[in-house]
Amino acid sequence: MDASTLTQYLHDHIPLSKAMQVGVLSLNEDSVVLGAPLAPNINHRDTVFGGSASAVAILAAWSLLHTRLSAAGLSSRLVIQRNTMHYELPIAGDFSARSFFNDAADWPAFVRMLGRKGRARITVSAVLEHAGQEVGHLEGEFVALGAA
Amino acid sequence: MDASTLTQYLHDHIPLSKAMQVGVLSLNEDSVVLGAPLAPNINHRDTVFGGSASAVAILAAWSLLHTRLSAAGLSSRLVIQRNTMHYELPIAGDFSARSFFNDAADWPAFVRMLGRKGRARITVSAVLEHAGQEVGHLEGEFVALGAA
Repeated sequence: MDASTLTQYLHDHIPLSKAMQVGVLSLNEDSVVLGAPLAPNINHRDTVFGGSASAVAILAAWSLLHTRLSAAGLSSRLVIQRNTMHYELPIAGDFSARSFFNDAADWPAFVRMLGRKGRARITVSAVLEHAGQEVGHLEGEFVALGAA
Repeated sequence: MDASTLTQYLHDHIPLSKAMQVGVLSLNEDSVVLGAPLAPNINHRDTVFGGSASAVAILAAWSLLHTRLSAAGLSSRLVIQRNTMHYELPIAGDFSARSFFNDAADWPAFVRMLGRKGRARITVSAVLEHAGQEVGHLEGEFVALGAA
């Protein structure tokens, strides 16, 4: 899957991603970077609304698992169970969300468990950046069910 | 502030609230209930996108603090610092988010601290419901700065 295919998939299936004008800036097997402009995500203080920041970070984390499961030929239902978001600085312009696994060993363990039990849990992180500075971060716990 | 005034305020100042078609269903000094339909918040599984669920819950929590600070004549800058969201069940239709204080004593303590230090922290919860069932909940930590 390439960046423009994933952007299109998000816009087609999750209309809020289109409303937030989210675009995929880059993706590889270890990370997905999403970008979004300020205007559709602004709040009453002319900075990014926390709900937008959080939603873009969740999308980045989900997109990493989605593309990696697809690349591995694993069709499974992916469900978010929990997330914690820390807002570190106000975001006064365009921003990005870069997702990654906390530990390189997490993915193979997740795939093994999914194959063995048909159910596996994994934590994905995402860092929000604006103007070259970290402005927030998210940790999301996902469960994948019923891999074929 | 009444429900339609607050709905209008949200739509005017936080455009994502309009994109999500959030409306204020009720508000009083202890709780704000927001509602949102499935269509603009749908995901690839035809249930509510986690980022939307989370954003509506954040708005409900923020709205409770905003209306209560306004009613008390306290003008302050309200910043979200952290939130944790638990997704309990998929949401297959319209949903609501009802915010409240975990403890009735939290508000007077918050106002006292804000008056004394010009800075105070408070935790607000929000419960998501769909078809009469709890489907998720959020805990959000906010800081208020510089009350006049």
